[in-house]
Amino acid sequence: MRQFNEDTLTAAVVERIQRGTKDERFREILASAVKHLHAFARDVHLTEEEWFEGIKFLTSVGQKCDDKRQEFILLSDILGLSMMIVALNHKAPAGATEATVLGPFFAHGAKEYGYGADLREGATLKGEDVYVSGRVLTTDGKPIPNAVLDIWQAKADGIYDLQTEGEFELRGRVRANEKGEYALKSYKPKFYSVPMDGPVGDLVRRTGNHHMRPAHMHAIVSAPGYQPVITHVFVEGDPYLDNDAVYAVKDSLVGKYRKVDDAAEAKRVGMPNPFIRLDWDFRLAAEAGVKARKKIAASDAIA
Amino acid sequence: MRQFNEDTLTAAVVERIQRGTKDERFREILASAVKHLHAFARDVHLTEEEWFEGIKFLTSVGQKCDDKRQEFILLSDILGLSMMIVALNHKAPAGATEATVLGPFFAHGAKEYGYGADLREGATLKGEDVYVSGRVLTTDGKPIPNAVLDIWQAKADGIYDLQTEGEFELRGRVRANEKGEYALKSYKPKFYSVPMDGPVGDLVRRTGNHHMRPAHMHAIVSAPGYQPVITHVFVEGDPYLDNDAVYAVKDSLVGKYRKVDDAAEAKRVGMPNPFIRLDWDFRLAAEAGVKARKKIAASDAIA
Repeated sequence: MRQFNEDTLTAAVVERIQRGTKDERFREILASAVKHLHAFARDVHLTEEEWFEGIKFLTSVGQKCDDKRQEFILLSDILGLSMMIVALNHKAPAGATEATVLGPFFAHGAKEYGYGADLREGATLKGEDVYVSGRVLTTDGKPIPNAVLDIWQAKADGIYDLQTEGEFELRGRVRANEKGEYALKSYKPKFYSVPMDGPVGDLVRRTGNHHMRPAHMHAIVSAPGYQPVITHVFVEGDPYLDNDAVYAVKDSLVGKYRKVDDAAEAKRVGMPNPFIRLDWDFRLAAEAGVKARKKIAASDAIA
Repeated sequence: MRQFNEDTLTAAVVERIQRGTKDERFREILASAVKHLHAFARDVHLTEEEWFEGIKFLTSVGQKCDDKRQEFILLSDILGLSMMIVALNHKAPAGATEATVLGPFFAHGAKEYGYGADLREGATLKGEDVYVSGRVLTTDGKPIPNAVLDIWQAKADGIYDLQTEGEFELRGRVRANEKGEYALKSYKPKFYSVPMDGPVGDLVRRTGNHHMRPAHMHAIVSAPGYQPVITHVFVEGDPYLDNDAVYAVKDSLVGKYRKVDDAAEAKRVGMPNPFIRLDWDFRLAAEAGVKARKKIAASDAIA
């Protein structure tokens, strides 16, 4: 193991990894990472100065991370890697709601609500009142009772609650009712910029300044026996739908936020008149593993 | 620009980079990095959990870096990337001393010495006394006068001066004389471990624990009109020559440290008897740019 040149070195590193790494999956991942890392250096004939610029950049990304900020996730997002991971791992079964990026602003421990949840409670900034309602359904359109919808979105200034000091805001766990229906009150989402004050912001500026995300409400929808979906609802007409900084837009996830000017309807749903309304159904695929377990249980019963 | 899947996403990200990035070389490097990053994720079908492990690992590497420690360079070293960069950028011209990794422990501002430099001055740890001497030559064996040799190595405990508080140790800028001869006194290098107390150490353990570097003296040899060389002199017989943690060993860089028991010779070179002696010549290639400039000057003279 010596005397390597650019044609023999990669095989030597991979061979050492494959010989010494016990965990099979880790071995596979690391060997592939080394092959691609070396191939990248060879393909562009990376100079020492460029290599050192890369070292300094990755160091600054790591050092920008803290309890509230994850600059490496942001880097992954703007290089399209996060969306690639979604694409690889969440191919929507036919008829199910499509998945998109989780993003760095999901949080555990949000307040729990039932039907008609008012997520505007305690909001420090006002926005356009919106009433969102619909159903959680199976892929063939049957209601799923009591699903849970984790909902979060940016405030009216485009900043998430997690990015500032203070309480949760425009965020909640909303339980659908026995008929599969849910309803919640919030503000209409607005487009916003990804954080641009760190090394990833510098990178985005050098690559043409695509730093905006189209407006969206985040949702994770889950119910026992079904595959949960991590998704967004985008806003029809948003100027950044075709230029999302993180490549997350899907046509099937663009919702029509329609203006309602009807005092009776406003009164019925407990909103000011006029207001904005989004009707949106989520559809979940059955969880394959659960089905399999049920089959086993059934055959046990027969035996 | 929406509705991407794992087959169309990479092209979309690359297209955005190519459209928006003004600097041509940066555009080429970033586009290639994205292609390889995405291909890696696809090749191993990276899961979300694995992706997040990667995010956490890179974050911890960045956060281990400080004024005295560069954990990303260490990561580059143990993945063979640093040696790949050397291989790509420093193909030794025929007859010239081969290059190898710089490593993270070079420092500017070391004390300057002439012929016979004693780098043991102020050393806090003793080692085996060694006398190193030889010449700095052209590729066809002619002496290069007054070359500068930047020399550094680990202390007897395998730790570099830069890794601890205190003064420079076993480090100096040694100038060769007009006949191209240099000589210095130091301690015989010993093998040592790369730093194993950080996230890269954890990685090395998972991949089979190749964390040792064979003993070596670092040298950067330079002279006006010649290509400088960043190199090592390894120690013949070292147990880690075939298992270098950073893949840096070349046969042409292994030196014979021979024991001398000769009172007259010891006295002549100012060493205790017995001592260890290394005879080592460095050979530098002419700098192409300088040659070109000289040719232009010559043709000017003819015209």
